[in-house]
Amino acid sequence: MTTSENQARTDRVTAGLLVIGDEILSGRTQDANIAWLAQKLGAMGIALSEVRIVADIEADIVAALNALRTRYRYVFTTGGIGPTHDDITAESVAAAFGVPLDRHPEAVRILEERIGKEQLNEARLRMANVPRGGELVTNSVSGAPGFRMDNVFVLAGVPAIMQAMFEAVADRLEGGIPMQSRTVHCTLPEGTIAAALGEIQQRYPDVSIGSYPYFRRDRYGVNVVLRHGDPELLDHCKNEVIAMIEGLGGSVAAEARGTADTD
Amino acid sequence: MTTSENQARTDRVTAGLLVIGDEILSGRTQDANIAWLAQKLGAMGIALSEVRIVADIEADIVAALNALRTRYRYVFTTGGIGPTHDDITAESVAAAFGVPLDRHPEAVRILEERIGKEQLNEARLRMANVPRGGELVTNSVSGAPGFRMDNVFVLAGVPAIMQAMFEAVADRLEGGIPMQSRTVHCTLPEGTIAAALGEIQQRYPDVSIGSYPYFRRDRYGVNVVLRHGDPELLDHCKNEVIAMIEGLGGSVAAEARGTADTD
Repeated sequence: MTTSENQARTDRVTAGLLVIGDEILSGRTQDANIAWLAQKLGAMGIALSEVRIVADIEADIVAALNALRTRYRYVFTTGGIGPTHDDITAESVAAAFGVPLDRHPEAVRILEERIGKEQLNEARLRMANVPRGGELVTNSVSGAPGFRMDNVFVLAGVPAIMQAMFEAVADRLEGGIPMQSRTVHCTLPEGTIAAALGEIQQRYPDVSIGSYPYFRRDRYGVNVVLRHGDPELLDHCKNEVIAMIEGLGGSVAAEARGTADTD
Repeated sequence: MTTSENQARTDRVTAGLLVIGDEILSGRTQDANIAWLAQKLGAMGIALSEVRIVADIEADIVAALNALRTRYRYVFTTGGIGPTHDDITAESVAAAFGVPLDRHPEAVRILEERIGKEQLNEARLRMANVPRGGELVTNSVSGAPGFRMDNVFVLAGVPAIMQAMFEAVADRLEGGIPMQSRTVHCTLPEGTIAAALGEIQQRYPDVSIGSYPYFRRDRYGVNVVLRHGDPELLDHCKNEVIAMIEGLGGSVAAEARGTADTD
């Protein structure tokens, strides 16, 4: 990481993600939210810069949230906002901010409308608890809202609901210059191109150059991924990478990825 | 989380996981290592208690590693041990421990044997750099070793290689009582069972009871997952959950999971 790369990073709009839930840490559930949010944020010019996954333990949630929310422009949390005893995200966020947890009248109204007054038991009413000062986030899938508290967006863990909540708040986020990426598939081993690739990185200090070996059906290969906000600079850099690989006797398949990407 | 549950947690053998790599944070690569390691560790009675995902930035790796290695019995890292400029895990681990980075003679020998002396360029030799005091971890897939430094195991990011490295060190880990789990699939909405489930949790304070709503093909449902080291206690608790759900007019499909699990 060169100085100018660090500079480029700090100029960027950043985000942290806090995944809350024993089910991810037990391996029972394969997380699907991290990659989805990373891509969505990247396309908006917001760099997902750190993820933490913690269990359903208030002290752990509070510590992780306070670390992330002071460090990154935006923080998203997923999970723990349902009606059962193991859903403790709202009270944990209130504790992290040092504010009381209130029953939010608008959230109660939404739940009444969705579930019906007679079905709205005390457990379900817990889903209307919001830290004081919090602002509701619409849930178009199942009703029970998330909330925003300062720079923290508290979303559901179920992917379909999390995605709907994110879409509902996306226009409240100020993005940066979306990162573009170019990927060059290379059949040479990583160790063969490493030195020359490092030299290209030196000449393009602001381009983030990643080298990702893979191993599939007994074949090794490398994907070289280039990222920057300027497509023209990116194409110059990509051409140098291709020339370098071909100069070393390798073959490439270059592909300009359609979706914006971020590191 | 009751006091006795916290107590049960602190008695357990714990682990932290540090995932290193821009490609996960960009959403380009869907992580496959977290769930795999979580399940493997759980089966050994080691509770994966926290995961952090950080970018290829030394200061971020050092801070996360130092936080995790002082808190958990074992720490695993994945990613960043290849030959290219963006592979900075070994030097970051050395920095975290405050020791120099040495060229490890046995690692050089392994690379010479695997790759051949004439192919062993300076970039590839970087894969033989190990923090002073580190002990090699065998890589039966592609040769280049990982290493253990105190309670930290530094593994590859490519899943097939990471898995082989983990298997190579598994017998060096002291596990605890493997967590067993029972899952009850329930067709009632989560809010309907929440209060009664909370009461069962009160009566079984040491059993970790998780409630995981799902939403598939326009149907909602809940998986209630019970975890504890004692199968008999678990079955008693499971029977109470089933009786509770049926008493509320719901139907269940109970399934004793064959693999040990941990939260």
